[in-house]
Amino acid sequence: MGEFELIDRYFRRPATRAPLGVGDDCALLAPAPGNHLAVSSDMLVEGRHFLSTVDPARLGHKALAVNLSDLAACGARPLAFTLALALPRADSTWLEGFSRGLFALADAHGCELVGGDTTQGPLNICITVFGEVPPGQALLRGGARAGDDLWVSGTLGDARLALEVFRGRPVPPGGFEAARARMETPTPRVALGLALRGIATAAADVSDGLVGDLGHILTASGAGATIDTSVALQTIAESNHFTMGNGNFDASFALECVLAGGDDYELVFTAPPAARDAVRAAGQAADTPVTRIGCIDRAPGLRLIDGAGQPVPRHFAAFDHFA
Amino acid sequence: MGEFELIDRYFRRPATRAPLGVGDDCALLAPAPGNHLAVSSDMLVEGRHFLSTVDPARLGHKALAVNLSDLAACGARPLAFTLALALPRADSTWLEGFSRGLFALADAHGCELVGGDTTQGPLNICITVFGEVPPGQALLRGGARAGDDLWVSGTLGDARLALEVFRGRPVPPGGFEAARARMETPTPRVALGLALRGIATAAADVSDGLVGDLGHILTASGAGATIDTSVALQTIAESNHFTMGNGNFDASFALECVLAGGDDYELVFTAPPAARDAVRAAGQAADTPVTRIGCIDRAPGLRLIDGAGQPVPRHFAAFDHFA
Repeated sequence: MGEFELIDRYFRRPATRAPLGVGDDCALLAPAPGNHLAVSSDMLVEGRHFLSTVDPARLGHKALAVNLSDLAACGARPLAFTLALALPRADSTWLEGFSRGLFALADAHGCELVGGDTTQGPLNICITVFGEVPPGQALLRGGARAGDDLWVSGTLGDARLALEVFRGRPVPPGGFEAARARMETPTPRVALGLALRGIATAAADVSDGLVGDLGHILTASGAGATIDTSVALQTIAESNHFTMGNGNFDASFALECVLAGGDDYELVFTAPPAARDAVRAAGQAADTPVTRIGCIDRAPGLRLIDGAGQPVPRHFAAFDHFA
Repeated sequence: MGEFELIDRYFRRPATRAPLGVGDDCALLAPAPGNHLAVSSDMLVEGRHFLSTVDPARLGHKALAVNLSDLAACGARPLAFTLALALPRADSTWLEGFSRGLFALADAHGCELVGGDTTQGPLNICITVFGEVPPGQALLRGGARAGDDLWVSGTLGDARLALEVFRGRPVPPGGFEAARARMETPTPRVALGLALRGIATAAADVSDGLVGDLGHILTASGAGATIDTSVALQTIAESNHFTMGNGNFDASFALECVLAGGDDYELVFTAPPAARDAVRAAGQAADTPVTRIGCIDRAPGLRLIDGAGQPVPRHFAAFDHFA
């Protein structure tokens, strides 16, 4: 199977929204008149972002999901994407599964593949995604203000739990497959991002861990934050995922996974207290749980408190590819 | 040096045209009102697209040049690009050189870096480039018509010559550095692509070899072509690059390099005979030589003839990453 046959067989589909799709030197996009085009690019490397044993359909899903998550964090509506793929070999079984998982998620979001590149090399997947957002309506990192509430969407920690099991931690008695699915097929919160336009003051997606990604918001906003860890812990999907062999809930490990787990692809965002009902309504409209876990402070830095308001001293490092 | 310090030190520059550049979940682009956005993505892998010994500044140039070449082939005006980079390690010397070469070419084309990704992994460079083109004015592959002239820009063959020297062919007495520079720092024909809007009927850039890339035009246009090899041979930069140790011109090798060399990043394009003066004027306006090497035929397939009109029987394979 040659390069162009590979593209024709697995990746060429007629463009429906774009004026020109796969097959020329460039693709052509036509954003809705007056809209800005939101752009994000993520590169996934075997052994860093996914295990070599991952099901290729799940990998196809995840490669696009992490990019759609960036659009969600900006409140942009998905439009199209390009796919650049380095493959050790042209493996039909792998390509069939990968493209199936990729297009299933793409179709669910009306996001069409318009171009890209294929080459031989160590497995590497680079997707660049495009979305539309009206000028001034994008959710940015720099808009958080002291007094704002701090929110997260969905559930946190399961992706990290699953990773630790792959690294040798015993499978929790409460189950593993649900956590594994959270790691391998994350749900980009596109609908929530759209619903939060005009409501949230700042947003980011949780890819490197809540503390790290919140840190980007705080730096960009010139602010600090306080997280109530007793509430943050409520964002775990099921407490029995974090039980130990003796049946006890491992609160310390659960909190580590929630605050510094990474790979959750939830949204962390801020909004004024007056917008609480609007945030909850946005969550309902997007069919996505939202949890208020703290607040934005004038004083720089991140403070963790327990349910009684007492400091929780901990150190968390966000994931860093070169640290 | 951590991931974010690396980005800050080498790749974060203020966006001047884009509403939002490096540093948020997405970048925001604002194409000129009514324009389409041309998009292309190319992935460069060490050992496939460049040698591990290449000067990093030249590699930075080339990584963007091959993408700008796709914009040129569509007649699009460069606007912005994203850079996704997998690096074995955060090497300051390499990053300084790479970013210097990259930004020198970017600045020359008014094309600004707006976002991307960095990760640890086998060296891989994926750039996605964005350009503007008014609706209906993009140069596409499918517009060639029987009777059109067949043109190429600039010079062909030197990149392949240089590659063959790296593969062990003796350095030609006529010099090597000029050929090597053509391989390592190709010139994207952006100005020519813009000047050919409304003149050329079809265009592609020569990345996989003239015969292969012309083949894409012929397939998309449902046409064939005839190349006069005696004229095509005039597109070599200097005949003394293709002299052998005995001082004789190696016409066979030169023709192989011209017709199937690849990595030239020139434009191959078609235009009606009535537009010959306009094509030459476009070449002059863009300060880029243009050579008429043949014509488009109704009969499918590619025919090679010599200066006397006699068939030249040869077989050329375009470069294919998986063949």
